[in-house]
Amino acid sequence: MKPETRQRLVEIARVLFWEQGYASTGIAQILQKADAGSGSLYYFFPTKEDLLLEVLDWYLNNLCPMVLDPVFARVSDPIERIFGILDGYRRQLLATNFAHGCPVGSLALELSNSHPAARAKIAENFKQWRAAVERCLEEAAGRLPSEVDRTQLAEFILTIMEGAVMLARSYRKIDTYDAAVTCLRDYFERLQKDGTDWAKPRATPKRSRRRTVGKRRT
Amino acid sequence: MKPETRQRLVEIARVLFWEQGYASTGIAQILQKADAGSGSLYYFFPTKEDLLLEVLDWYLNNLCPMVLDPVFARVSDPIERIFGILDGYRRQLLATNFAHGCPVGSLALELSNSHPAARAKIAENFKQWRAAVERCLEEAAGRLPSEVDRTQLAEFILTIMEGAVMLARSYRKIDTYDAAVTCLRDYFERLQKDGTDWAKPRATPKRSRRRTVGKRRT
Repeated sequence: MKPETRQRLVEIARVLFWEQGYASTGIAQILQKADAGSGSLYYFFPTKEDLLLEVLDWYLNNLCPMVLDPVFARVSDPIERIFGILDGYRRQLLATNFAHGCPVGSLALELSNSHPAARAKIAENFKQWRAAVERCLEEAAGRLPSEVDRTQLAEFILTIMEGAVMLARSYRKIDTYDAAVTCLRDYFERLQKDGTDWAKPRATPKRSRRRTVGKRRT
Repeated sequence: MKPETRQRLVEIARVLFWEQGYASTGIAQILQKADAGSGSLYYFFPTKEDLLLEVLDWYLNNLCPMVLDPVFARVSDPIERIFGILDGYRRQLLATNFAHGCPVGSLALELSNSHPAARAKIAENFKQWRAAVERCLEEAAGRLPSEVDRTQLAEFILTIMEGAVMLARSYRKIDTYDAAVTCLRDYFERLQKDGTDWAKPRATPKRSRRRTVGKRRT
């Protein structure tokens, strides 16, 4: 029982679940594509759900190298990094003729009622994605109104990504995806306009710091 | 072959597809729940997909009586009507302990790659929902900035509803749904603030109309 076989089974299952869903993917198809025998499948994964949980762990471990790092290497502005992540899903939709959306989102709707362990791991995936976006928002905090709840806004961005992928896949057109991103950008512009009003009086903490400096000088 | 049997088969299939998905719903389960024989099922629906298409038509025909009319009877403000529709999905999530989200959204992600005819009908459902929201936005046009693309904004609202339902079902908590609605409300407030600035100079067309009135008076 080679570890390469285990890895190959996970990779094949991952892509099949992504393309056709969990229930529609049969054991026979996984074995055929992975060129493996049922013995090794049952050895590594006693049940189909064990394989699913492994796939969901793969997504948890690969959010950074697959989704975030390529964008972060190219884009440095924290707000543009968020739009860069959204652009990654857009490219993937176009490159696969709308076959590949967000793999975690599809499994979320298919399995939330029936597979509690998978549901929990799906939620973990969402939380990790949201936390990455939240870190970008933290870096850009000075450009947003102080009352903005960044956790909430990050969750909103995840909401929009998942909804936009769903609509693009259903329409087989990218227009709706672009419409959602345009609205989100408009929202960000309005937030930033309110967050960077240089005509506003300075907030108290900064003013008092200036006074201390002044005292030292005299 | 009674028409009631046909109707019962559609209703049973609709709820099963909603709760457990399309692929996970077996013919035997539908027959058992509908208390019908396989003869009448195959008579009315030669294939499982025929039954699915009928379910999707049911949703098309029932958007108004099931989703829109109850809200519109209670709420008259066009923007509050939109938030009322979103509140309907929220109530349903809570009432079913997150088991019942948006039935069309779940089928969208499960079937978009594999069932082109169903995919087209799913897209039709989305378009009808979006058009209803767009009509609300048209009624509220005077309160929004003139540059707002109402089709785009309506699509954005559908995007948010679908994404928010997905996250709520995955987290088994309503917080994310509420976070998304709060952000959308904040966006609407910012749009309305820009759309109703009474201190702004009047736009040119209205000014010239005033001038004509003046001329008549002299």
